[in-house]
Amino acid sequence: MRDQFHEELDRISDRLVEMSRLTGSAISRATTALLDGDLKLAESVIEADEAIDAIRRELDDSAVDLLARQQPVATDLRMVVTAMRMSADLERMGDLARHVAKVARLRYPESAVPAELRATITQMGHAAEKIVAQTGSIIAGKDVQSALSLETADDEMDALHRQVFEHLLGGDWTHGVQAAVDITLVGRYYERFADHAVSVSRRVVYLVTGEWHSSTDLLGVDAGDDD
Amino acid sequence: MRDQFHEELDRISDRLVEMSRLTGSAISRATTALLDGDLKLAESVIEADEAIDAIRRELDDSAVDLLARQQPVATDLRMVVTAMRMSADLERMGDLARHVAKVARLRYPESAVPAELRATITQMGHAAEKIVAQTGSIIAGKDVQSALSLETADDEMDALHRQVFEHLLGGDWTHGVQAAVDITLVGRYYERFADHAVSVSRRVVYLVTGEWHSSTDLLGVDAGDDD
Repeated sequence: MRDQFHEELDRISDRLVEMSRLTGSAISRATTALLDGDLKLAESVIEADEAIDAIRRELDDSAVDLLARQQPVATDLRMVVTAMRMSADLERMGDLARHVAKVARLRYPESAVPAELRATITQMGHAAEKIVAQTGSIIAGKDVQSALSLETADDEMDALHRQVFEHLLGGDWTHGVQAAVDITLVGRYYERFADHAVSVSRRVVYLVTGEWHSSTDLLGVDAGDDD
Repeated sequence: MRDQFHEELDRISDRLVEMSRLTGSAISRATTALLDGDLKLAESVIEADEAIDAIRRELDDSAVDLLARQQPVATDLRMVVTAMRMSADLERMGDLARHVAKVARLRYPESAVPAELRATITQMGHAAEKIVAQTGSIIAGKDVQSALSLETADDEMDALHRQVFEHLLGGDWTHGVQAAVDITLVGRYYERFADHAVSVSRRVVYLVTGEWHSSTDLLGVDAGDDD
């Protein structure tokens, strides 16, 4: 049987898994809302973000409370601090899904996505869903191998992001400045969403192995981006 | 005389002030590099970001170490956790300054900023410098009043950001898609920079008063944005 500290930590971990489920649902619905110009769906994503924020607050309160009551050291301390950082990443992923939904809402009843970019944006949405689903499994299973393969999924997202820029800057953009601005921002939101997911999975690897993957950074590293 | 815990906490606070000084210098130089198409200056900003990241790592290691050795509770615990969150915000501000510098580098020897937007971008740069300078003073002085006035500076930044969009979408944009993409991203970077600075100052208010300003959120809130 687990002791009280680890039981409470398990509950915190369950909340992280729940947050990844909710952000996955949010980015999936936001992508559909964006592609279909679906106002209702967009608004449901925007409203649902409050639930993600609430779990984050609750989780962080529990974590601080756990630190105060149980005074963990070494790996146990590191686990609590890292859980709080994961919750920050996941909350931000919820925000980014909400941002995509807000672009959808702004352009309703049109879709913000020109026809020739639908395939790419659809793929970005799928990549985001895949990454966050994997992230949830990684947290639940403390699965280091999956965490490493998630970096490949992030490379896929980066390649799609480059495709978006190639479309925009290829010289035959005919959709005007507003669509260019929308697509620039949306592309950035998906890319940042994936960055934060990778950051979460790196934290899991760090917890399990004590080593920060492919970086000299340790505990204190948030979702970086190299663009 | 202060006890050891508070002396160590003071050192952590000094590092946060140093981080805000470095991010202030970075955003100032990045803005000049962007406006002047100055490659050398842009590269110096990109390289200098590593120093900010290093302070962040060091600071967070000290904070975790302090938690483990001193086992603080109540306000003391809250201060250490909050300091780690501030360092995350400040590190991200450094990243955003680096992003601005990268746009400058990408467009060298041209400037990414069309003539009629120079004034607005200059003002965004100044607003960012002002906000981060105030942030440093607020951390150093635990000055709640200044922290509240920083929200006004952030409103200024939001207004400038709206001006950028009005230029872009006003219907007489003649600078092509690439300049529109650059300006969209740069505008977003400045806005996020200010959001993170506000987040830092809210954390100071929270530490001093125990109340989260203008929000139901408590400890666990990162730089939000409402766009």
